[in-house]
Amino acid sequence: MRIGVLTSGGDCPGLNAVIRSVVHRAVVDHGDEVIGFHDGWKGLLECDYRKLDLDSVGGILAQGGTILGSSRVQPAHLVDGVERARGHVAELGLDAIIPIGGEGTLKAANLLSEAGLPIVGVPKTIDNDIASTDVTFGFDTAVGVATEALDRLKTTAESHQRVLIVEVMGRHTGWIALHSGMAAGAHAIVVPERPFDIDELTARVGARFAAGKKFAIVVVAEGAKPRAGTMAFNEGGKDIYGHERFAGVAQQLAGELEKRLGKEARAVILGHVQRGGTPTAYDRVLATRFGWHAVEAAHRGEFGMLTALRGTDIVMVPLAEATQTLKTVPADRYTEAETVL
Amino acid sequence: MRIGVLTSGGDCPGLNAVIRSVVHRAVVDHGDEVIGFHDGWKGLLECDYRKLDLDSVGGILAQGGTILGSSRVQPAHLVDGVERARGHVAELGLDAIIPIGGEGTLKAANLLSEAGLPIVGVPKTIDNDIASTDVTFGFDTAVGVATEALDRLKTTAESHQRVLIVEVMGRHTGWIALHSGMAAGAHAIVVPERPFDIDELTARVGARFAAGKKFAIVVVAEGAKPRAGTMAFNEGGKDIYGHERFAGVAQQLAGELEKRLGKEARAVILGHVQRGGTPTAYDRVLATRFGWHAVEAAHRGEFGMLTALRGTDIVMVPLAEATQTLKTVPADRYTEAETVL
Amino acid sequence: MRIGVLTSGGDCPGLNAVIRSVVHRAVVDHGDEVIGFHDGWKGLLECDYRKLDLDSVGGILAQGGTILGSSRVQPAHLVDGVERARGHVAELGLDAIIPIGGEGTLKAANLLSEAGLPIVGVPKTIDNDIASTDVTFGFDTAVGVATEALDRLKTTAESHQRVLIVEVMGRHTGWIALHSGMAAGAHAIVVPERPFDIDELTARVGARFAAGKKFAIVVVAEGAKPRAGTMAFNEGGKDIYGHERFAGVAQQLAGELEKRLGKEARAVILGHVQRGGTPTAYDRVLATRFGWHAVEAAHRGEFGMLTALRGTDIVMVPLAEATQTLKTVPADRYTEAETVL
Amino acid sequence: MRIGVLTSGGDCPGLNAVIRSVVHRAVVDHGDEVIGFHDGWKGLLECDYRKLDLDSVGGILAQGGTILGSSRVQPAHLVDGVERARGHVAELGLDAIIPIGGEGTLKAANLLSEAGLPIVGVPKTIDNDIASTDVTFGFDTAVGVATEALDRLKTTAESHQRVLIVEVMGRHTGWIALHSGMAAGAHAIVVPERPFDIDELTARVGARFAAGKKFAIVVVAEGAKPRAGTMAFNEGGKDIYGHERFAGVAQQLAGELEKRLGKEARAVILGHVQRGGTPTAYDRVLATRFGWHAVEAAHRGEFGMLTALRGTDIVMVPLAEATQTLKTVPADRYTEAETVL
Repeated sequence: MRIGVLTSGGDCPGLNAVIRSVVHRAVVDHGDEVIGFHDGWKGLLECDYRKLDLDSVGGILAQGGTILGSSRVQPAHLVDGVERARGHVAELGLDAIIPIGGEGTLKAANLLSEAGLPIVGVPKTIDNDIASTDVTFGFDTAVGVATEALDRLKTTAESHQRVLIVEVMGRHTGWIALHSGMAAGAHAIVVPERPFDIDELTARVGARFAAGKKFAIVVVAEGAKPRAGTMAFNEGGKDIYGHERFAGVAQQLAGELEKRLGKEARAVILGHVQRGGTPTAYDRVLATRFGWHAVEAAHRGEFGMLTALRGTDIVMVPLAEATQTLKTVPADRYTEAETVL
Repeated sequence: MRIGVLTSGGDCPGLNAVIRSVVHRAVVDHGDEVIGFHDGWKGLLECDYRKLDLDSVGGILAQGGTILGSSRVQPAHLVDGVERARGHVAELGLDAIIPIGGEGTLKAANLLSEAGLPIVGVPKTIDNDIASTDVTFGFDTAVGVATEALDRLKTTAESHQRVLIVEVMGRHTGWIALHSGMAAGAHAIVVPERPFDIDELTARVGARFAAGKKFAIVVVAEGAKPRAGTMAFNEGGKDIYGHERFAGVAQQLAGELEKRLGKEARAVILGHVQRGGTPTAYDRVLATRFGWHAVEAAHRGEFGMLTALRGTDIVMVPLAEATQTLKTVPADRYTEAETVL
Repeated sequence: MRIGVLTSGGDCPGLNAVIRSVVHRAVVDHGDEVIGFHDGWKGLLECDYRKLDLDSVGGILAQGGTILGSSRVQPAHLVDGVERARGHVAELGLDAIIPIGGEGTLKAANLLSEAGLPIVGVPKTIDNDIASTDVTFGFDTAVGVATEALDRLKTTAESHQRVLIVEVMGRHTGWIALHSGMAAGAHAIVVPERPFDIDELTARVGARFAAGKKFAIVVVAEGAKPRAGTMAFNEGGKDIYGHERFAGVAQQLAGELEKRLGKEARAVILGHVQRGGTPTAYDRVLATRFGWHAVEAAHRGEFGMLTALRGTDIVMVPLAEATQTLKTVPADRYTEAETVL
Repeated sequence: MRIGVLTSGGDCPGLNAVIRSVVHRAVVDHGDEVIGFHDGWKGLLECDYRKLDLDSVGGILAQGGTILGSSRVQPAHLVDGVERARGHVAELGLDAIIPIGGEGTLKAANLLSEAGLPIVGVPKTIDNDIASTDVTFGFDTAVGVATEALDRLKTTAESHQRVLIVEVMGRHTGWIALHSGMAAGAHAIVVPERPFDIDELTARVGARFAAGKKFAIVVVAEGAKPRAGTMAFNEGGKDIYGHERFAGVAQQLAGELEKRLGKEARAVILGHVQRGGTPTAYDRVLATRFGWHAVEAAHRGEFGMLTALRGTDIVMVPLAEATQTLKTVPADRYTEAETVL
């Protein structure tokens, strides 16, 4: 068999572990040939690739990033994207393509699959918002990095007797905020799924000070917003350098809470550290299993599918199904987190 | 409601997170009273306890160990163990007891439950061998510690051009060996579930050297044994100080592999570092959820049950069922791990 | 002997290690009594303190923050500050006071010392800018945290093909930027001691892209500024919430570099994570030694002095001398760092 | 200039950082050519090397191990070792050789230097026992790994109510034991420099239990021995597999303390994890500076010298002087550590 693999979209710890696993399983166990496209779909569209053998994946299991490079280019960006992809697949004699990526990548994968190309997708997102799989690799690492930062920030918040508003990743869903907030014992967690009421939040943090505590930690997902009409809120826009955000939700929350509580409040934005670097053991194992099962699915001819974790099993799920909705934090998970704070 | 909580058996990262979660959920949300028995079942049998309020669980979420202490004492160790427990439960007016422990503890919990006491168990084991739950807290931390050690050992094995045989915990099951071995890219994994064939293992490691590699890492669970008749093996016994093990499986494997391969081989025994210290974010979240749901089960009157993770949900499982068999590494998981090495 | 100890100023990993060491050395070895003032000089001025025995410092060695609390209050803030301090020292029968703090704290210590109070100072700053000592505790931890973040950011910068401008602490000196930048292999380091020339910096980063590299990491100390007249620069001021900074140096640099290089550039502000949480082994050892030697100096009657590291020795240095100048990054250290990037 | 670099002896975090720094400084700043000999002195003796350019040292700063390989072969092992080295140096037109290694390597370096070869040594040892330099790289990482393990072991020792005897590296000197023991708050530290009195040690640990504590941690350097005549002691020898040690000092101490104290005692041997893997920021900075200054010394023609840290400066020290004695733990450092336990 001849298999093409590519990584597309933002950085995510575990990408290299998937690539390595695909090569090990395909080349060593099945005697397949594997090629890696450079810079995501761009490599497929421009027929830019290299052969991947055992040596080319040596020592990459624990490395962050992706040895294949990535980009946000997608087949639909070109008028003849699908046809070019089809042409290159034929030209290269590929029996299967394994794209590793997030929601956008998987939608593109579905498009190509519906156009008849032999696709087996591997889901990737630190946000954990892909439906049909219990968890995606990268999420555990992101939560771990955020939790370690929160552990450190606690002593500082306490020493300085402050409220710290810590912004973690999550534009559309609050999984990282939920898990890191629970893991670090944050005193309030704010997620995009539940627009916050600034009065309630103030009351919650205020109650803590009333009970004699000297600091508070609020974890907020970058995509969180106030309930309409409860607080002036700058939706974003560009800063003077044309960058996307001016004063994000954390900074605005810090301003409001400081004003309302009469306590020093500061914003901390964890940023990109959450998505880079070496993956946790959990993510390495999950990524490795995804790669292994993607190769197996290809050999069974199960195309148009996605690897997914269900309980402790890896199963195959239709690509079409997996990309229809985002997996959001359900109310009961939020309730669990809120009551133990 | 009046709830008693206790921790029993060996150290496991996440015990304090469960205790904290029980107290937060019960005291803050339900207005319950919570007491903590000292040193496991011993505390219940001797009526040795203290009241647990919010302050008494402050700052313990990220701490290893257990603020309640532990012991290996069990009700069945006393002729009148069950009756003493029943008496103290009545005397203290307890509506529920939440024992947190491993297989032995849960069997004791089942015994008391069958004797009519109101028990909700919380499973605990770094070995991940409790049936009925996808994962137990403590396991992720143990795998993380072992993986970090393996990452470090790789460069040393390479510099010294050696075979390193790294012994990880797991007397009856090989979960820690399987996951840390996969996560670190070990070149062979040896688990108790599959007695090893020393000829096959030698061939596997030897093939690596034949292919020009200069070192190899073998991960072995402490309870692994050779297939009968394939290798002289010291089953254990006592050393000259009366300690349990003389030359464990790692040391014996190192001896055999060195002799057969003509390469320096050394044993490294990771030992107790795998079961102590701060839990990973994953384990803190799981432990917190277990504590929360144990309190809920008690309030619903669901006794004789155990908290368990199924997929992403916490469910309740009968204690009797959960303690019947050990959860062992299934053949397909081992195959996955073996083929990507 | 009766000794009072206090911690003053911002959070710094190792404060608890000093407190513990003072108590161990004084109470156990010398049979002294030790009291801890609450919230820095405030505790001395308001006679707010508690007795510190062995139990009260149990388990704090590895903990960030300070069990005594801190504040930025200083004796000079009160008209009768010195007299109140003198009165309380007499009232409490103190033979020595050990203030642990940064530049401001040590100046206050010198003031009280010159007024005749028996002071032995312990220097503390994550910035490493106190003259007369090779290193202060807290610095190694801050550098470690920043380096770990930079390690993670590298793979992300590479995957996204970006310039990342990473702002680390250091208002007046660039020690954290210098060491973390060297440790992580940053491609440019910008420190307050050397106002940057935006043309040179652009050329430096641009040369990297010209050589075919796909990303760059610039580490910048928060207090860094452009050479006068070379770039429009917002010196700070308040944001709309009255917080100190609006667009810091990292954000402004990101804007300029993006414009000039035509490459995506993003700012990452590491912030308070650098000053909180558990200290590294290095900082724990240094802090412990400082505490030990401060007690010894008190017993020898060496007041008006500061503990300091010189090579591998702890020596005593006059307070007056230690607070006269900031220790800045010398040109040759900057040259070393610059040429290996 | 044409420079040859090699790494010799055991694994040590920071070796790659030195190699990278030598290449950056020599190639980029001076326009030199650099070659790397494979497997230590062996590469020089057998003329086995490769060219090192910027690309060949990309991404290695944070990696453990050495990209050049290592061995324990030394010129003195061959009758014509010095002459062969001289011949290859002439043949390759080398103007300088930079060997990076420990005591044995530096003695060999001195031998070659006295024979007229242009040598600039870089000291390397996790043990920190090289005289003439305040610290060597690798030591901080080893202490950090040991301290993290000790932090974890504390909760386990407490939960299991045991004495844990933790063996760390250090055959001849106790620096790792001293620093990790201080950093982790061990209750006794045993070093080779001070043969231990088993009665005193028992009394010390026993006093802790008498004071109501439930566990104790003893850190012991692998080379520690009892004071003559105070305890039966197995000096080592071979085990049944021909490996060097049978029951090391930790295991023997555990046996004795268990017998004498009537408390469970267990040995934990940290082993090779202390010398592998990614270096700390401290070690990366020190290693980078050593590499830089070695190149500078070569350009100044200062041969027969060794880079050394004195305070915060890198200085050059005669090779002959540096290898005469081991740097041992002085009495006052031991006293400091002992009294704060």
